[in-house]
Amino acid sequence: MKQPDVSKATMGRLPVYLKYLKEKESKADNISATTIARELRMGEVRVRKDLGSVSGAGRPKTGYNIGELMLAIENYLRGEKTTEVVIVGAGKLGRALLDYSGFGEYGINVAAAFDVSVKLPEKSQNGKPILPMSELSRFCREHDAGIGIITVPAAAAQKVCDELVKCRVKGIWCFAPTVLNLPAGIPVQYENMALSLAYLNKKI
Amino acid sequence: MKQPDVSKATMGRLPVYLKYLKEKESKADNISATTIARELRMGEVRVRKDLGSVSGAGRPKTGYNIGELMLAIENYLRGEKTTEVVIVGAGKLGRALLDYSGFGEYGINVAAAFDVSVKLPEKSQNGKPILPMSELSRFCREHDAGIGIITVPAAAAQKVCDELVKCRVKGIWCFAPTVLNLPAGIPVQYENMALSLAYLNKKI
Repeated sequence: MKQPDVSKATMGRLPVYLKYLKEKESKADNISATTIARELRMGEVRVRKDLGSVSGAGRPKTGYNIGELMLAIENYLRGEKTTEVVIVGAGKLGRALLDYSGFGEYGINVAAAFDVSVKLPEKSQNGKPILPMSELSRFCREHDAGIGIITVPAAAAQKVCDELVKCRVKGIWCFAPTVLNLPAGIPVQYENMALSLAYLNKKI
Repeated sequence: MKQPDVSKATMGRLPVYLKYLKEKESKADNISATTIARELRMGEVRVRKDLGSVSGAGRPKTGYNIGELMLAIENYLRGEKTTEVVIVGAGKLGRALLDYSGFGEYGINVAAAFDVSVKLPEKSQNGKPILPMSELSRFCREHDAGIGIITVPAAAAQKVCDELVKCRVKGIWCFAPTVLNLPAGIPVQYENMALSLAYLNKKI
């Protein structure tokens, strides 16, 4: 299992820097960490650390070259090659993720969804395939699927997980509120919507 | 702003304990942290700490009374009163969250969704109202909405946030990949789907 070299918090701020730099690009060649920090209302130490994790340090006096910095951030976010992703569970959430347009900038292509209730191939609103479970193995092989997303009910999640592991996905993103058993070396990331909202609810 | 007295990680494990205890309830009256830790393959220190944050400590020799422990966990998760929640942005994700059934056990009721493109009241698949934006203020007042969920595109998120703040929500859950300006004292929690998947992608 590769370890990401930047924290999730830093990764979350990278698109913020990128958007900010895009606005500045036409107005200047260089920008200092001090300016970025002030205008984005962030700590300067944090800005230097975040940017330093994907790019070289800014030059004394001139700061960062905006074009180079943008390229470094984009390259980091996109990675070396696009990861193909499959979804198992084509309910409302599965279909929402299938058609979500925000993954591309991170070098991720959500290629298809699969569901036990789908008997004949369908298309999502955005034209992505929604296929019977019997197609999963072939599809994963042909598309070299790297990640499997689980959006089935908790009771079905382990079985789906086992199938995805057999299909040789290298990571699992699980929306079912359960704990999965996986072979060592396959990272799993849980996304518990109810828990996230419940946590916010405890803060209000 | 209230601070939650348990961490998000602990909160995430509470339903796991609860499910486990439900299975044990008919078989025994008491259970030790040692047994729980072993059977759930978790560290004993963590189990004691987690359970201690919502319940008293287990008794020496006998451990926890299963029924009492379940009640303590359920009460903590549910809170004192149900929080009413509104969603702004009735696209695929907004509708998926509107009809998601997992919030109830956390004392949360997602009451309605609102969207600029909705001109006449609609119903979701599960019968929840999807209403025009012009209804937001009245609805929030009548239902004493505590949390607003933002599932509109990033460009529209700040405007929606401002409207929700005017409607006196006490917290914001934001799925738009942006950073919101909010008055102090209103917690905002960001949920960036693309970022979460991108983070997993960096680990495989």
